[in-house]
Amino acid sequence: MTGFVSFVSAGPGDPELLTLKAVDRLSRADVVLFDDLAAGPILNHARPGADLIAVGKRAGKAQPLQDHLGRLMIDHARIGQRVVRLKSGDSGIFGRLEEEITALRAAGIAHEIVPGVPSACAAAAAAGIPLTRRVIARRVQFVTGADLTGGLPEGLNWPALADPDATTVVHMGRRSFPHLATALIGQGLSPDTPALLAEGVGHPGQRLERSTIAGLAASIAAQLGDSTERRAGDLPALILYGPLAAED
Amino acid sequence: MTGFVSFVSAGPGDPELLTLKAVDRLSRADVVLFDDLAAGPILNHARPGADLIAVGKRAGKAQPLQDHLGRLMIDHARIGQRVVRLKSGDSGIFGRLEEEITALRAAGIAHEIVPGVPSACAAAAAAGIPLTRRVIARRVQFVTGADLTGGLPEGLNWPALADPDATTVVHMGRRSFPHLATALIGQGLSPDTPALLAEGVGHPGQRLERSTIAGLAASIAAQLGDSTERRAGDLPALILYGPLAAED
Repeated sequence: MTGFVSFVSAGPGDPELLTLKAVDRLSRADVVLFDDLAAGPILNHARPGADLIAVGKRAGKAQPLQDHLGRLMIDHARIGQRVVRLKSGDSGIFGRLEEEITALRAAGIAHEIVPGVPSACAAAAAAGIPLTRRVIARRVQFVTGADLTGGLPEGLNWPALADPDATTVVHMGRRSFPHLATALIGQGLSPDTPALLAEGVGHPGQRLERSTIAGLAASIAAQLGDSTERRAGDLPALILYGPLAAED
Repeated sequence: MTGFVSFVSAGPGDPELLTLKAVDRLSRADVVLFDDLAAGPILNHARPGADLIAVGKRAGKAQPLQDHLGRLMIDHARIGQRVVRLKSGDSGIFGRLEEEITALRAAGIAHEIVPGVPSACAAAAAAGIPLTRRVIARRVQFVTGADLTGGLPEGLNWPALADPDATTVVHMGRRSFPHLATALIGQGLSPDTPALLAEGVGHPGQRLERSTIAGLAASIAAQLGDSTERRAGDLPALILYGPLAAED
């Protein structure tokens, strides 16, 4: 009588970008534990009568009660339930899977990971650009722009990040982007490197802003003013920079 | 009476990893142009009577007739048809979208890009690992291991690739991996860095080999012998290396 936990990647938010496997797991779940960002119409795929439990965390906010979340999964699985842990984007990319998997392993509960459409891929598709191109953008990398304090992480690999021949996608990095841009320019990356802010990708309020790293840094600094607080209602944002980032 | 081209990402090959949007576009297409790797049961979603046209290319083989492919898309769209151009993985990652988009733009034909599940995300999920983890793998990068000749590309960013705190996913890089591993070790990356060969991800013949960069290089060299030819029937392979790559 042991249940099972499926870590289901919900994709960027557009319900059409769910996979068939994600829909299947949602439709058969007894309980769905979901983040703020993986909610909305996606939950319509859960069967009537399933328990839908919000366990939200948003970028820049404090750690959620990770122990509590682990216990919730384990308690439901132990009574034989099928548990879906819904995560936005692809759960393997900045989804902090390991903490939850560690808790399940310690409790001896089986799990699977259902991959999904990363938000970065959806952002590029929405902008009409590929993430790679032969010769001029042969590498694509995903990084976070904020540590737990909201500032730029320590120990960044500057030769990797300031590479003019790569596409870089910065997650959770809107507030720190002015600092990142300054550092990149200091490392020799041209201030005119194309950059794209993709806000609320896959959500009805989706907005794309095409610019350069210097231009986007100035625009963000002007919007944020002196505040480093995330504003209520802010949609999550990705920043893409590199030779392909601002094409039309 | 102008048609429309949808670049549809098919995901890694497992038909369950198609998105709802991909299924929708396939089910409404008049013509589907597909690569070898995006074929099989996925095409069952096309409506009866749709034209299914193979335009295959496989890693290591010569360029397909790109002009011919562009003309096919344009000819079908010009008579008002809905064309799906099906690509494996996420089409924005090493999908060579730009050549086909350029041809459509020149012909004045509208298009959209439907993002999908990258093969790298499916490989990691199949292995039960995330691609990123706080502190120890804060960056993930996708590169190709082969240029048009099948050898290691020129001008690789070694500080990026030999970074012990990143997860690197090498596409189309099985044959050149022994050379890549030697170079990475020469750049200071430990030969004991975990590495994972993921062959045929999402296909029935899927196989995972957990090793280290030195161990995997030796294993591949032994399998290849002196041949640098891709063998008929070889499934496409991804190689992941970095601190998370060989966890169980």
